[in-house]
Amino acid sequence: MLIAPGGWIFRSVGAESSMSAPIPIENGGDTGNGLPSGSSGVDKSVQREAVPSSSSMKSKMGTLFLVGISFALIFNSEYDPLLACIGFSVLAYVITTVLIPALSPDFVRVGFVGRDLGKKNRPLIPETMGAVCAVVYLITLFFFIPFLFAKFFVTETSGSGNREHVLDTATLHKGRSLRMFPHSKLAEFLAALLSSFSMLVLGVADDLFDIRWRNKLLLPAIAVLPLIFVYYVDFGVTFVAVPPVIWKLFNPEMVSNSAVPPVVDLGVFYYIYMLAMAIFCPNSINILAGINGLEAGQSLIIAISLLLNDAMYIIPGRILGLHPPHPATEAHLLSTYFVLPLIAVTAALLKYNWYPARVFVGDTYCYFAGMVFAQVGILGHFSKTLLLFLIPQIVNFIYSAPQLFKLVDCPRHRLPKLNTETGLLEPSRVYFDIPPKGAELLLLTSLGKLKLLDLERDPETRLIKSSSNFTIVNLVLTWAGPLREDRLAIVILGIQAGCCAVGLVARHTIAPALFGRDNL
Amino acid sequence: MLIAPGGWIFRSVGAESSMSAPIPIENGGDTGNGLPSGSSGVDKSVQREAVPSSSSMKSKMGTLFLVGISFALIFNSEYDPLLACIGFSVLAYVITTVLIPALSPDFVRVGFVGRDLGKKNRPLIPETMGAVCAVVYLITLFFFIPFLFAKFFVTETSGSGNREHVLDTATLHKGRSLRMFPHSKLAEFLAALLSSFSMLVLGVADDLFDIRWRNKLLLPAIAVLPLIFVYYVDFGVTFVAVPPVIWKLFNPEMVSNSAVPPVVDLGVFYYIYMLAMAIFCPNSINILAGINGLEAGQSLIIAISLLLNDAMYIIPGRILGLHPPHPATEAHLLSTYFVLPLIAVTAALLKYNWYPARVFVGDTYCYFAGMVFAQVGILGHFSKTLLLFLIPQIVNFIYSAPQLFKLVDCPRHRLPKLNTETGLLEPSRVYFDIPPKGAELLLLTSLGKLKLLDLERDPETRLIKSSSNFTIVNLVLTWAGPLREDRLAIVILGIQAGCCAVGLVARHTIAPALFGRDNL
Repeated sequence: MLIAPGGWIFRSVGAESSMSAPIPIENGGDTGNGLPSGSSGVDKSVQREAVPSSSSMKSKMGTLFLVGISFALIFNSEYDPLLACIGFSVLAYVITTVLIPALSPDFVRVGFVGRDLGKKNRPLIPETMGAVCAVVYLITLFFFIPFLFAKFFVTETSGSGNREHVLDTATLHKGRSLRMFPHSKLAEFLAALLSSFSMLVLGVADDLFDIRWRNKLLLPAIAVLPLIFVYYVDFGVTFVAVPPVIWKLFNPEMVSNSAVPPVVDLGVFYYIYMLAMAIFCPNSINILAGINGLEAGQSLIIAISLLLNDAMYIIPGRILGLHPPHPATEAHLLSTYFVLPLIAVTAALLKYNWYPARVFVGDTYCYFAGMVFAQVGILGHFSKTLLLFLIPQIVNFIYSAPQLFKLVDCPRHRLPKLNTETGLLEPSRVYFDIPPKGAELLLLTSLGKLKLLDLERDPETRLIKSSSNFTIVNLVLTWAGPLREDRLAIVILGIQAGCCAVGLVARHTIAPALFGRDNL
Repeated sequence: MLIAPGGWIFRSVGAESSMSAPIPIENGGDTGNGLPSGSSGVDKSVQREAVPSSSSMKSKMGTLFLVGISFALIFNSEYDPLLACIGFSVLAYVITTVLIPALSPDFVRVGFVGRDLGKKNRPLIPETMGAVCAVVYLITLFFFIPFLFAKFFVTETSGSGNREHVLDTATLHKGRSLRMFPHSKLAEFLAALLSSFSMLVLGVADDLFDIRWRNKLLLPAIAVLPLIFVYYVDFGVTFVAVPPVIWKLFNPEMVSNSAVPPVVDLGVFYYIYMLAMAIFCPNSINILAGINGLEAGQSLIIAISLLLNDAMYIIPGRILGLHPPHPATEAHLLSTYFVLPLIAVTAALLKYNWYPARVFVGDTYCYFAGMVFAQVGILGHFSKTLLLFLIPQIVNFIYSAPQLFKLVDCPRHRLPKLNTETGLLEPSRVYFDIPPKGAELLLLTSLGKLKLLDLERDPETRLIKSSSNFTIVNLVLTWAGPLREDRLAIVILGIQAGCCAVGLVARHTIAPALFGRDNL
């Protein structure tokens, strides 16, 4: 054999020496440990059995109905960007729903394919479908830009078709400048799109090349640079509110003014904090992963929570007119424009990624969704609220840290293990060839006593032989397992929803009390 | 064989039925006809013989020297973005030079690889290296943004370390707004980056998936939407100057005013024209391709011409102070900031893509470079000048049109054919199984008589048996061939340089005379 089929498609051991039975690397969509996920073998049969597009009469009518609604909303939005955004989001949902099955065979053909290890027959299914979502999302927002700013063109005329603003020769050569046009808002919007685009490129590059850990950390920070620059230019707010209670601890002589909460200027540290957010959000979603529907499901819940949070600012003041619009209304409208289309494409993706998954989302999706969260948090100056919604991701990150930072052995795959007899998932385990000692032993025994790990000890020597892996997916299985894959996803998504609900309530009840002012 | 090695890597006929001798699809970097280029077989040996990085002592010293220069320029730019941009461009050159050999094995591994058909042994070399250029280019411009706007932060203070602009509580909660900050310029810059980013994604998608013709035409138009929107908002200039001579033909009664040339408002057609530019530039570079160094070489010459054109506006007024700065100085400075880093990454790419090529540039590079040209032409409102520099591409497009639009048969590959005995390239030919008739026959005989085609006729029946393919690469070979690949590239790049030189001179001599005003 002159030309060994050596490309990434058969990168696995043995593929080069023997062609008769190439063994594709196993892949559970994402390995769930944030480490490079292996790519895998490609099977021609996958192309034939690729995601069937639902082409029944009923589904076609439904699609047409949705397209009709979206066009009605877009073209009757009468300069209300919110209506147009809803319209575009419905359209984005429809397009993503159609494109995912349509493009699946092409993704399989070029090698974006992975084995679903949570199923008995370990089917090969298309991978990196988040790229489709991201592209639809970005094109949607490209088309949305004129609608977002439409009202600023209208104020140029008296509305009866007259155009008072007659161009003279000087204007003609220098160009015109629309009065009142919010260029800074346009710059914000474009910078946010640029960050998302960078993450799409980074995500696809990661799915293709398996980028190294340190670059995965570095690159989102570069991606968010234009956004942070725009933030610096437009707001430059590096102050964070401090609860008066805490303030008084450090400044007992200060007279409390309940109307304006005390603030602390974080200065350059605020920018470092924003960079950290941009690194944390994409990566933290990428490591809470590994079972069908989990990545898209958690993102959907977080996005909906962000939308509800935005609604708390927008609806009472702007829509119901109960009181003057909240000062942060504009920021939360901008957030809504980014979050609504994300909800749309994520819902479409989840349709195909839910158990039993017909497509994988890929690192691309996790990075992309995470960056959208980070950018709305940064632009809207509500990153603390965002962190409330990311509590499961934060907990999972902290819980995973010992394995991520190699204090404890980290196997290549940390996703739960399928028990082929019961069809249920069980916690995956890390086996210790050398019995752990020192800090590792202390950590394992402490966590074991707190029931945060399932330890297996040698019956005679009492030395630790193995432990469940350090992810909350495995932890849930340790506590409540074994579970079928979809039940497990429901439990974790339930935790996510619960955390978001508590966060949302806390944000609008405890926080105003603590900070001495109300949002509404 | 259960799992046929069916991915794109062995898409070629026969690969599925017989594994003993998989025949990779041939690929000459780009097929040169704008139709989807075939991907090709992957050879493990390529990874080993992949692009050697020049690691001699001398080259290391040179690299260090360049890095030193770039840092000196960047950090001593004293708020002059031009110096910082030169510094960043030098750095981009160094980084691209290092990254291309470093990433080549990874590109080969994931299947970005193609056969060089212009060589006797048809070596497999890494493909899509334009993606590296594009990423370096974009990251460079990300880091450049703060330097571009640095001076606007300085005017905030008196320069002696004082900060007059003290933030009060109101500002603090609403954010601040820098006086005089050119948000519109920032929006322009970000929109241009967004368009380039979109083309990077489109280019990689094309190199991966072989996107269909109609989508290739459509997608650049979507990519450029934010830019056109920003143009609409910031300039809205839809007027084009008309030479008074022509104007008088249509308006004989009009009194000529030599100071201000007459203008015609193209209205919405100007926006359609800009969309057409965005579609034409990337695709036209992509079809004048197929031999080593041609894509990167022509882009380098066009970019240098744009830089020289910018210099005509910038140097006399702004740098030498001979007269007040030309009104278009700012637009040409912006163009310079986009063109300089492009020259840098292209020069680095050309080092590896020049005969004998060690890497291919891929559609990615052509799309990306073409979009940078389109965006500077649009933003700087000098798209007519740009078209002067693109004359070889325009001629090639018109000349190719009969094959592109299927009036004449279009074979899959139109790149020149290697004569393995002489080692020289000869024109590739299209063979007619059915003798051409009607319009096709008329076209072929007319072009044949004009010596614009090399026709082969049956000695007896005088029917046309074959013709050289419709690209100027083949035309040059018909006239001056056979030539060695590098000689051919030099001839075509010479034509490109000649056209650009004539265009540049015409722009600054004939055009001012014709339009009745001078640039300087």
